[in-house]
Amino acid sequence: MPYEFKARRRVEFCETDMAGIMHYANFFRFMETAEHGFYRSLGFSVAEMSLHPKMGWPRVHASCDYRRPLRFKDDVEIHLLVLEKRPKALTYEFRFAKADDPAREEIARGKLTVVCVARDEKGGMKAVPIPAEIADRIEVAPREILGT
Amino acid sequence: MPYEFKARRRVEFCETDMAGIMHYANFFRFMETAEHGFYRSLGFSVAEMSLHPKMGWPRVHASCDYRRPLRFKDDVEIHLLVLEKRPKALTYEFRFAKADDPAREEIARGKLTVVCVARDEKGGMKAVPIPAEIADRIEVAPREILGT
Amino acid sequence: MPYEFKARRRVEFCETDMAGIMHYANFFRFMETAEHGFYRSLGFSVAEMSLHPKMGWPRVHASCDYRRPLRFKDDVEIHLLVLEKRPKALTYEFRFAKADDPAREEIARGKLTVVCVARDEKGGMKAVPIPAEIADRIEVAPREILGT
Amino acid sequence: MPYEFKARRRVEFCETDMAGIMHYANFFRFMETAEHGFYRSLGFSVAEMSLHPKMGWPRVHASCDYRRPLRFKDDVEIHLLVLEKRPKALTYEFRFAKADDPAREEIARGKLTVVCVARDEKGGMKAVPIPAEIADRIEVAPREILGT
Repeated sequence: MPYEFKARRRVEFCETDMAGIMHYANFFRFMETAEHGFYRSLGFSVAEMSLHPKMGWPRVHASCDYRRPLRFKDDVEIHLLVLEKRPKALTYEFRFAKADDPAREEIARGKLTVVCVARDEKGGMKAVPIPAEIADRIEVAPREILGT
Repeated sequence: MPYEFKARRRVEFCETDMAGIMHYANFFRFMETAEHGFYRSLGFSVAEMSLHPKMGWPRVHASCDYRRPLRFKDDVEIHLLVLEKRPKALTYEFRFAKADDPAREEIARGKLTVVCVARDEKGGMKAVPIPAEIADRIEVAPREILGT
Repeated sequence: MPYEFKARRRVEFCETDMAGIMHYANFFRFMETAEHGFYRSLGFSVAEMSLHPKMGWPRVHASCDYRRPLRFKDDVEIHLLVLEKRPKALTYEFRFAKADDPAREEIARGKLTVVCVARDEKGGMKAVPIPAEIADRIEVAPREILGT
Repeated sequence: MPYEFKARRRVEFCETDMAGIMHYANFFRFMETAEHGFYRSLGFSVAEMSLHPKMGWPRVHASCDYRRPLRFKDDVEIHLLVLEKRPKALTYEFRFAKADDPAREEIARGKLTVVCVARDEKGGMKAVPIPAEIADRIEVAPREILGT
């Protein structure tokens, strides 16, 4: 579906901290795994994601609400949903659950807004419209899926 | 001041990504550096932060708005401000700027809510009131500082 | 086989650095993924790996020789081989290759020595013999496999 | 001195793992902090370290011997010494100790070999002689310092 993707990742030992749970910053790495898996599922290559030599996708917003901890070896499902599509930006929602939990009890819920930018020669970045080749293949998730 | 703290960290090479800028998840690590520096500035030891053997401070919310990128070797100032103090939770704001920028132009602004919990023997966590030894020494930042 | 295991991991965006390749320290994280997959393949649970409440497996040596870089999205096979088994320590070799490379050209080769320790109440660690339940199920890889 | 540098870093919470100690892969990040501090101490800018647009310094060998653990908040001194200087490669030794330990008891000792490369247009890398501007300002540490 051009509006969702489910990624799987196991919590590695090095992703835990001395509290015995996955460090909170690592949830943002898991979100990115789902984001890139989503692009891959749509058939986008790295080349396509940077059509023009200096195109990039920096993040302008990231957030996460944590409900339950993840632990070493947990097999995690990260469910990406397209929340919003604007001319120059995409917003994703991420729902974390344990892959072996039939009830898919929510562990955490995250959000990420990425902006399409062109980089100039000095490394400066300017927001530009998402190329049609990409934008046309991404849809906002239907309300009945988002609305929980 | 019991309502703010300024931490300094230089962006390491391993904290950059192939886009040539600091990876967005690492801003959350920098926030934690400032948070722990804040506790240290108040004289709290690790022992005090876990007065009762099984006390912990998990995060229930984390967010960041990114305005400008950070690059390798940038000397970063992370200005922590206490946004909110509730019986069982503390919310911090973090303002990122380059330490050598006299104008302190904002690079990013983050937020973190931490909850005081007691862990039971099975590893379960339950929110509990922040011990007075700690709560009494932390204040909410004055409005004139926060209100920008 | 009780002397080898093949793990797979894709290089994540956050594992690259500004040189555009996987950061060298991350190869050590990939080795650990293979090590834990090996224990899992033998049926060891976390509980078994810490039979006595305070048992641990700290590393006393780690090394890696890098021949070719890994890049974002590379699908990596990490081939663990048991190099040495001593009463209190295990040494593993790790051979990195791209999973889609039929020739399995070597990207890097690593080594890890882990020691079985008991922790005392003050957090001190002392090397102890590997419990028979574990040692009996691990074998040194045959010479004809190692000898390349 | 053009053959040594002492860097300082405090162990962050996110650098620990569920065993309660600094994760072993993070020692390699600390080594790099010392390496870049060394270049900075010699007055090299990032620009100088990549004189020719496509110059890079990939690692071909990294190793570490661990003697004692590091814990959250430990203030660590990483003492870099130049072990070897070859036309295309530099080898560094790193001695880890706690900065507040007058005896500087060794926590760990690491080694890193970096090679100077030129990158071609396809991203391929070829070892090249270290530019004189850099090589001339780096010396091998005297034997009486190394010989312990």
